[in-house]
Parts: sequence; structure tokens; C-alpha cells
Amino acid sequence: MITVGIIGAGRIGKVHATSIGTRIHYAKVKTIADPFMNDEMIEWAKSMGIEHAVKDYREILTDPEIDAVLICSSTDTHSNISVEAIHAGKHVFCEKPIDYDVEKIKEVIQALEGSNVKYQVGFNRRFDHNFAAVQAAVAAGKIGEPHIIRVTSRDPEPPSAEYAAVSGGMFLDMTIHDFDMVRFLAGCDAEEIFVEAAVLVDPAIGKAGDVDTAVITLKMANGAIAVIDNSRQAVYGYDQRAEVFGAKGMVATANDTNTTAVLSTVDGVIGEKPLYFFLERYMESFAKEVECFISAIVNDTDTPLGVMDGLKPVLMGLAAKKSVEERRPVKIAEISF
Amino acid sequence: MITVGIIGAGRIGKVHATSIGTRIHYAKVKTIADPFMNDEMIEWAKSMGIEHAVKDYREILTDPEIDAVLICSSTDTHSNISVEAIHAGKHVFCEKPIDYDVEKIKEVIQALEGSNVKYQVGFNRRFDHNFAAVQAAVAAGKIGEPHIIRVTSRDPEPPSAEYAAVSGGMFLDMTIHDFDMVRFLAGCDAEEIFVEAAVLVDPAIGKAGDVDTAVITLKMANGAIAVIDNSRQAVYGYDQRAEVFGAKGMVATANDTNTTAVLSTVDGVIGEKPLYFFLERYMESFAKEVECFISAIVNDTDTPLGVMDGLKPVLMGLAAKKSVEERRPVKIAEISF
Amino acid sequence: MITVGIIGAGRIGKVHATSIGTRIHYAKVKTIADPFMNDEMIEWAKSMGIEHAVKDYREILTDPEIDAVLICSSTDTHSNISVEAIHAGKHVFCEKPIDYDVEKIKEVIQALEGSNVKYQVGFNRRFDHNFAAVQAAVAAGKIGEPHIIRVTSRDPEPPSAEYAAVSGGMFLDMTIHDFDMVRFLAGCDAEEIFVEAAVLVDPAIGKAGDVDTAVITLKMANGAIAVIDNSRQAVYGYDQRAEVFGAKGMVATANDTNTTAVLSTVDGVIGEKPLYFFLERYMESFAKEVECFISAIVNDTDTPLGVMDGLKPVLMGLAAKKSVEERRPVKIAEISF
Amino acid sequence: MITVGIIGAGRIGKVHATSIGTRIHYAKVKTIADPFMNDEMIEWAKSMGIEHAVKDYREILTDPEIDAVLICSSTDTHSNISVEAIHAGKHVFCEKPIDYDVEKIKEVIQALEGSNVKYQVGFNRRFDHNFAAVQAAVAAGKIGEPHIIRVTSRDPEPPSAEYAAVSGGMFLDMTIHDFDMVRFLAGCDAEEIFVEAAVLVDPAIGKAGDVDTAVITLKMANGAIAVIDNSRQAVYGYDQRAEVFGAKGMVATANDTNTTAVLSTVDGVIGEKPLYFFLERYMESFAKEVECFISAIVNDTDTPLGVMDGLKPVLMGLAAKKSVEERRPVKIAEISF
Repeated sequence: MITVGIIGAGRIGKVHATSIGTRIHYAKVKTIADPFMNDEMIEWAKSMGIEHAVKDYREILTDPEIDAVLICSSTDTHSNISVEAIHAGKHVFCEKPIDYDVEKIKEVIQALEGSNVKYQVGFNRRFDHNFAAVQAAVAAGKIGEPHIIRVTSRDPEPPSAEYAAVSGGMFLDMTIHDFDMVRFLAGCDAEEIFVEAAVLVDPAIGKAGDVDTAVITLKMANGAIAVIDNSRQAVYGYDQRAEVFGAKGMVATANDTNTTAVLSTVDGVIGEKPLYFFLERYMESFAKEVECFISAIVNDTDTPLGVMDGLKPVLMGLAAKKSVEERRPVKIAEISF
Repeated sequence: MITVGIIGAGRIGKVHATSIGTRIHYAKVKTIADPFMNDEMIEWAKSMGIEHAVKDYREILTDPEIDAVLICSSTDTHSNISVEAIHAGKHVFCEKPIDYDVEKIKEVIQALEGSNVKYQVGFNRRFDHNFAAVQAAVAAGKIGEPHIIRVTSRDPEPPSAEYAAVSGGMFLDMTIHDFDMVRFLAGCDAEEIFVEAAVLVDPAIGKAGDVDTAVITLKMANGAIAVIDNSRQAVYGYDQRAEVFGAKGMVATANDTNTTAVLSTVDGVIGEKPLYFFLERYMESFAKEVECFISAIVNDTDTPLGVMDGLKPVLMGLAAKKSVEERRPVKIAEISF
Repeated sequence: MITVGIIGAGRIGKVHATSIGTRIHYAKVKTIADPFMNDEMIEWAKSMGIEHAVKDYREILTDPEIDAVLICSSTDTHSNISVEAIHAGKHVFCEKPIDYDVEKIKEVIQALEGSNVKYQVGFNRRFDHNFAAVQAAVAAGKIGEPHIIRVTSRDPEPPSAEYAAVSGGMFLDMTIHDFDMVRFLAGCDAEEIFVEAAVLVDPAIGKAGDVDTAVITLKMANGAIAVIDNSRQAVYGYDQRAEVFGAKGMVATANDTNTTAVLSTVDGVIGEKPLYFFLERYMESFAKEVECFISAIVNDTDTPLGVMDGLKPVLMGLAAKKSVEERRPVKIAEISF
Repeated sequence: MITVGIIGAGRIGKVHATSIGTRIHYAKVKTIADPFMNDEMIEWAKSMGIEHAVKDYREILTDPEIDAVLICSSTDTHSNISVEAIHAGKHVFCEKPIDYDVEKIKEVIQALEGSNVKYQVGFNRRFDHNFAAVQAAVAAGKIGEPHIIRVTSRDPEPPSAEYAAVSGGMFLDMTIHDFDMVRFLAGCDAEEIFVEAAVLVDPAIGKAGDVDTAVITLKMANGAIAVIDNSRQAVYGYDQRAEVFGAKGMVATANDTNTTAVLSTVDGVIGEKPLYFFLERYMESFAKEVECFISAIVNDTDTPLGVMDGLKPVLMGLAAKKSVEERRPVKIAEISF
């Protein structure tokens, strides 16, 4: 039985607590910490069978009974708490991104050196049934050597311009998942990136210094070419697809829907829109990634997504920004690390 | 908080116990009873947080703390335990069928008369996302008056001939779900039935006196014509579809799959087979039907599927048998009740 | 080079004339006859390179240069002209049905005995790409022994009640194609039929003594069960599908559409309706059936659809009527022939 | 009645001759010219009702009866014959590309200045049912302002390395159709292009100085971003899809197949591969483009694809080559014209 502490009682912290409580029999959440802990959160924790609901995450790090922590706090705290938790000897599951600052990720990497701590970063989409099936087909050689990898990733609605301004920008906030997906599907790293980006959804996002639409081309280490297309607003819902084309064929996914019902009327043949957003579409993957983390601890194996998997998409995001600024293809290696 | 006892710790009893334990916050299972209760079951019950694991279901019926029982025992016990539970003042969720003997169902109906007990029968497919969407479209008038209702229901593999012999026959064991579905989709009762049936899958089933393939036509009270096609063996998996055609259009569902991944190779464009069998396909519906039962208790509303909804498909199944024996259309009213 | 005469210059006569003119290099239409021949038809014939446009079809039958005739005149003339053409030594392609009166079909059968004339009846749907693919899969054993055959056949709009009254009724006018299809897909004859029919589309059709909605169950000679569902009005367009389910799998077709374009908006994911009606959907099959007829003459082989293939669906249609009248399953053998 | 001469009796010349002969009633082909005219071609011409089959295309240009010419000769002759035909006062339909040399296209443009000659270039895919439907949806505003345009264009098998060496390269030989498609769907010109290309299909193509795989990003004049992905070898067949995503939705097409038949077995749910190659997929579009050309002459309207529409994709192809050579985004305006 693995004893877990959760740091951050926001939306994703609660999702993980629920997953552990209802689906993982060999783990339990003992403590949840949040600086804004209030009566409602405490009540919720009690209903989930969580003994302690506290304000200070250090109560978790200093509890000798706790084996592992899930860092679900605000992004700017991820790297520091990671380092503290590693030093406290806790296994760490850290929500993405570890940090937007490469130097801060370096500190986590250094903290991990020589430790026996398991570290996993929360790129949950690898655990989505559709994307996992695409990757499995590629890894099994069903399409031969991959030649072209396409990822479509479009949000149903844009963030506020205020959020856009502080989010690190679309590439680090949203595309970072797609950067990870491209690495996952190709089975290797990206070497070079070129971005064609625009502000087409909301001029306020442009005024805040960000973009909301992009087509991103990547040259992968295995020779494949990857292309990501992003938009901050697909009015028909969360559009999350991937396709890998190779020497022996192609594997592709469609969006998930609530039901397969199709209505035929004088107006046409009408199917359902995709599941609305990430909580609907990726709920199952959130549970699976935590199961894998707990399982890696129990079986003393590598986590499926280590600290370097947390670093690489950040480097890609920084290279993407540079490509937009300098209007040229940028090698990932140009981003100093 | 509703306190529940579960009678029968087989597959479906465990499914319901898990649903309540992990998804229904305002209910808990206090006791589970099974005549074959053993250490493994006891261990499992403990892991689910169920206090008591006993052999005699009467411990449940006599426990004043228990509000409701789920009858998941063998089919031949459903009606008797239903009557006992009703007399004990417990709300009852009874797995389908209540009984194959109409007289025994009558006893349950009589027991319910004048009682304040909620009674629900386990036709779970009404709670399946796809079928519920079809019914909702029909009920919302999106296809106008229904004219033709089609239900395809094919199992992935046949039962043993031994099972077939004691199961009550295909119509009462398997088609009974489709009889309920037809009533659900049409929004009314069937008046007449004609069956064309055959033994095409396994001659042993024929020797045991049953059929394994059938096309069943029903005249519904609202004038619509319904047709069910059944097979005991679809080698590509559990085939569960419905289509309702009406004056203003059609609504239809496809099968569910694990993923949307499609592989294109020199061999063709290959998608996944349907989810294998009822535990895979209908797991969510099992949870939803129990949620609705508990909710009906909490809110003191009618259950979505009362005792008469348990009776009607049995009458239809008996009429189906008669149609096969007498090679003619049979009115449901011919089945004495 | 086969020289052809066309009897009847209505819609289907023109379709066949165009097919021969533009697609069949080893045949030409020399003469077209129609009792209502007028200047417009004559102009059209000239534009198609047809030398003679006449009123009396006997000019075709007495022309020694003409090898073959296509009988596209009104239904009540099909059998008589067939007999005359056979006696004149012309190969005959006859639009369906040969006649609604079995005695009249007998006369055609008798005329053919001992002659060297090729005779083909116009059940064009066998030449449709989708249905032909289903049949080919079944015939190739890809689904094993067929168990259940489903044909959906729904017209986009009902005929006038006047037409319904003189058309021979839905079973002989519309379902006759589906009866042929069931024989084609099963690879054998039907033995017994049961019909559940209703008037749900237009009460005037009912007053005219016909039905407009039906589900028809057939027991096939090979043990398979076939089911046809018909409606005179599918508001979303011409619904023409088939599915054959067997011991090793299932093969099924969807409707054809003009394009594969799918529009995703806030309103849903919207595809095109089926092609509107038989001229849109089956145009290619009309050309192919005539190509096969000409080819059978050139190569002196059997036509793909002989006079008995013209008879059988009529027997099935008459049995269907009897089933509705007598509310019971009717053996095809009960229809005297 | 428009009298047409066809220059070049190769595959596409024959396709156009057949289209005119069988589908366009108000045009006829009087003469076909080919330097390699032989008995077989003469026989074929006769069977098509073409009076003259000659070696020298000048016989067509000097024939005062001939209104229009279709230039279907080898690519290197397109521009010169275009100029000669324009000077001879013939309307010109010219197969793509007019030339790979911009200066030669200029000569055609100059020849057209002040003439009354209709000129159309053969980008047939605009007349394909699927692509035309996508464009129509965009032009009708159904998806709002376009933001992202995706074109997938993959051939079923690579050309020989010898052909690749003399074809002008993949961008001018194959992608040129996609460049036209992007302009068609966006409704405007491209301003800048970036290409990520590779040799992944056949090393011999690389040795011949060409590429066989590419992802091409384009910034369009209306702000949209377009992306084309190309491969010289999709083993599952000719992959021809497009998707336009915009402010109010998305419209997308799938590949065409011979039939809609789907086979479900223990191996999966198996649909057909796309139509094999351009003759299968685009046959209808070849007929439609010529119909539009003839119609433009008859009605004295602009052709749907003028000489500038022939020039622009060549400029895009040359810019694509430059982008590969210089590893940077290239403005189309950089290509001197």
C-alpha cells in the first residue's frame, strides 16, 4: 500500500485524488495540502476518505508515512516543490510543465541525480486510449518506418487575454502537450522546428504578445517530419487527432464523442460533436497516468515519463517561440541547456 | 445516506458493489450475502469496505439499518426474494428477469400493492449512452412518429448447450433485453409478435430444444413495426445496435469500440471490432441503473423501470416461444396473465 | 456489332439508349419506338445518333437487321411484347416486372422454350457497386454460411394514391426489387414469407387499398433468415442498404452520397444525405445491366438474370400480399404456378 | 456546336476525347494530332467518331473550322503550342503545367493580351466532387474566415528515379496540384512558403536530386495558414484529402472508395482502400473541366482557371525548391517574374 500526499487541491488535484480513491486499491491519499484550504475543501477531502487536509505542503514532505507526492499546485511552484520533495525522499508525480525556465528544470534533474526517487511528469495524453493505440501500432511496426506525423490539437475556446499573457504563451501552455505527443508517436526527439503562427481568433491575445493559431513543422531524429496544427478555438469542440503515415501504411484516430448516435433528417446526416474539453476527453488518461506512477513505485521500475520527458517539450516550446521571432527554422539544440 | 445489502456475490453483484463503492457517494453497501460465501469473497468484500459478508440473505432482510437490497442471486430465486424483501420493507433492485413464470411475477406485483417500496428491474441497456441517445431523440420528436424500429443484438459466442437447456431459451435469456429495448424506444407496448427462428450456430442448442438465430417482428401499440435480429454468435464481437425510423427522419447507433484508431495498409482500412461482451460494453450502464435506483429512493420518485417493465418482456418472450411453436403471429394478450 | 431496338422512349428507355450510345462500343441503337412518339423525342433520338424514331414497335420486331430489343414500355405490355419479340427471334431485355400476372409470365417462359433467344429481366440493383460487393463477399465465403440477411429499402417520397392503386401495390411495385436482392444475396430462393405491414405515411394510400410501411421476414432455402424493411417515405432521401451476417462475419453497405464532405460546426458533425432517388443512385447499374445483356449475346452465354429470375420475385410479392390478407406466414409454393 | 482539335493522343488526350464524345453534346472532336500517330491510334480515333488523325498539330491550328484546341502533348511543348494556338485564334485548354520556366509562361500571357481567346489550364482537381464541396462550403461562409487549410496528397507509388530527374522535381510535378488546391480553397494567393522535405521512400530519388516526402507550410494572403503533406508512396492507395478549419467550423473530406462495403470478421472491421490513382479518382473531374472550358466558349464567359492560375502554382513550386535549398521561409514574390 502506497501512501500519497497531494499538493494542490484545485481541479486536477481533485481528479487525481478521486482516481486513487476509486480505482487504485494499493494506494491511498493520506494528506492533501493547499494554501487556500477552506471548509469546502476539507469537507470534500473527508468525503473522499482523506484524513488530513492542510494548508502547508511541508506537512506532507515531513510525514514519514507518505511515500509519494503529486504536485498539482500552481505552475510556478512545480520545480521548487519537486526539488524539496526529492530531497525529502518522496517519489514525485509533477503536473506539466515542470517549469518554463530551463534552469529550474536543471535543478530538478540535479536533485534527482543519485537519488532513488521515482519522478514522473504529467503528460497525460500518452495514456489516452486513442493516442496510445496509434503509438502502439507505430511501435509494433504496423505502418513501417514513420514518415509523416500529424497532430491536430484545437481547444474549444480561447483563454482570456490576461491568462494568455501569463501562461508562457500558447507553445508552452497548450502546444507543449503536442510536442510531447510528437516525441511519443515518433519514438524519438525533434531536431529542428519551424513555426507559422498567427492571431486569428482574438486580437486581444495578439496584444498580449501571444498567438492563437499555428502550424508547426518538426524534423525528427529518425528522419520523419512532424506537423502540429493548433487553434485556440474550434467552435465544434475539442479537436484532438493524430495520424502517423509510414512506409507500410497509416494509423489515424478520430475524435471521441459521447455516443455513436447519428440523426438523419432533411437537414443532413448529423453526428455528435467531439467531447467538449480535456476533462471530458482525457479523464480516463488522468487516472491511468497515476496508476502507472504508483505501479512504477510498487514494482520499482522506471516511470513512463521521466524528468527528461518533462524537459524536452519545454525546449521545443522555447525553440518554437524563437522560430516565430526570427522567422526561420530553429534547431532544438540552439536552446541553451 | 442509503444503506444497501447485496444478495448474490457473483459477477453482477460485484459490479454493483463496486459501482456503489466508487461512484455513489450517498449510498454504501453494508452487507453482502451469498450461499457460497468463502474466504476469497470475504476478502474482496473487505477490500471494498463492506462490513458484513454472510451466507444467509435473511441477515440483510432483517437488518433494520438496511434500506435497500439488490437481488443478484440466481434467477430462480429472484421472485421469492423480491416478495420477502418487499414484506421486509426494503426497496428492491432485482436483476432481470424477475421470473420466467408469470405467476411468480404476479406474486411480486401483489406484494408491492399497498407497499411503499421502490422496485426496479435490471434492464441496464436503457442506461447505455447509445441507446439512451436514440430514445431521447425519439422522445424529443426529432424523427417524428416512429414507423420502424430495428434492434440488432448478437452475442459474441454461444452459451453451452447445457446452459441453453436451463436458461429458459434464447427469447427469455437473451432477447428479453431486446424486448425491453423495443418498448423503451417505441415508448409503448408490443401487441403482436411473429418469430422466424433457426438453429444455425450450434446443432447442440437445437438438440437442447432451443434456437440460436432469429428475426422477430412486433406490432407496437402506436402502430410502429419493430424488428429484432438475434444471433448467439457474431465472430466479430458483441453487436448491439438500434435504429428508429420515423416520419421526420432516422436515428441510429453504431457499436462502441475501444479506440477510434484506424489502420490503412495494403490489406484495407481496418477499424476495431466492437467491445467484446456485455461487461465491456455495458459497464457504465450497470452503474447508472443503480444510481437511478438509489436516486429514486432518496428523492421518493418512481424508479425508471418498475415491476410491470419486468413483466412485459417476459410476456413477449413467452409469446415468441408460442409463435415459433405454432408458426403464426401471436398476440401478447394471448399469454394469460 | 449488335444492333438494338428500344421499345418505349420514356425515362428508362432514354437511359438505356444513352448507355449504349456512350458506353457500349460494340452495340448501337438503330430504332426507338413509342406510341406517343413526337417531335421532341425524334429530335432527341437524332442527337443520340438513332436513325429511326417510330410509333409502332412492330417496325423493330420485323427489322431483320435488329438483333435485340429492350422492352421499356408500360408494364402491362411487357409480357405480350416479350412473347412477340421472342417469336420474331430477337434477344430480349425486359424491364421489371415481366408481368404481375403469373399466367402471362408463363407465356413468356413457354415462348422461350426451344428458342435460342437470350432473355434478361431488369433487376438493375444486382449491378450496383455496393450490392454487388456484398454479394461477392458472400459468394467468396468471406462471411461463411449466411444466417441473417437484411435489406433496407426506403423511397424518398411516396407515390400518389392514384399510382399506388394501379401499381400492383407496394410489394409488386417497390419491394419486388428487394425480393430479387434477397435471392441475389442469399444465393437461393425464399420458401416462406411473413409480412407485418401498415399505413403510416399517407392515409390515402391505405384508402387505395395499399400499404406504405412493412417489415418482411423470409425463410430462405439455405436456412438463412432474410428481413426487408420498406417505407414509401424516408425524408432524408433514398435509403438503400444491405447487410449479410454469417458464421464467419458480416458484410454491410452504407448509402452513397454525392461527396464525402463533412461539416463540423456548433450544430454538430454534418454529412450529406443519401443520393436522392433511383436515377441518381442506380444510374451506373442501369448501364452495367445492359452491358451484361449485350455481352451475353456477343459471347453466347446465359444472361445474368433469366426469365425465372423475373418470375420468382413476382411469386414472392403475391405471397406477401396473401400474408397481409391472411395474417400468417405463407409458403411461396402456395402461389399457384 | 464547338469544333475541337486535340493535340497529343496519349492517355489524357484520349480521356478528353472520350469525355467530349460521350458527354458534351454541343462539341465534337474533328481532329487529333500526335507526332507518333500510328494505326492503332487511328483506329481508336475512328471508333470515337474523330474524322482526322494526323501527325502534325499545325493541321489543327490552320483548320478554320476548329474553334478550340486541347493541348495534351508533352510538357515541354505546352507553352510554345499555346502561343501558336493563341495567334491562330483558337481557344486553348492546356494541360498543367504551362511550363516550368516562368519566362515561357510570360510569353503565353503576352500572347493572350489583346486577344479574344479563352485560355484554361488543366488543374482538374478543382472539379472533383469532394474538393469542390469543400471549396463551396468555404466560399458560402459555412466555416467563417478560414484559419488553417490542410491538404494531404500522397501518390500510391513513386515514379522511377529517371522520371523524377526530368520531371522538374516533386514540387513542380506533383505538389503543383496541391498548390493550386490551396489557392482554390483559401480563395487567395500564397505569400510565403516553408518546406521540410526528405528522401524516405526511395534513395534513388534522392540521388536524382529530388525529394519524395514533404510538409509544406504556406502563409496565405488572407492570413490563413495552409499546410500540405506529400509522399510519393502511400501503400494503401492514392490519399487525397482536404480540410479547412475556420472561425465558425471545419469542413473536411475523406477518400473515395469503389464501394461502401465493410467486412466485419475476427480480424477487424475492414473497409476498402481509396481509389487507386488519378485516373480512377479524378476521371469525373477531367470531364467536368472540359465541359467548363467548352461552356466558357459557348457563353463567352471567363474560364474557371486562367493563365495566371497556371502561373501561380509554378511560382509556388519554384519558391518551394528555394526553401529546401536555403532552409528558410521564402516569399513567393522572391521568385522573379
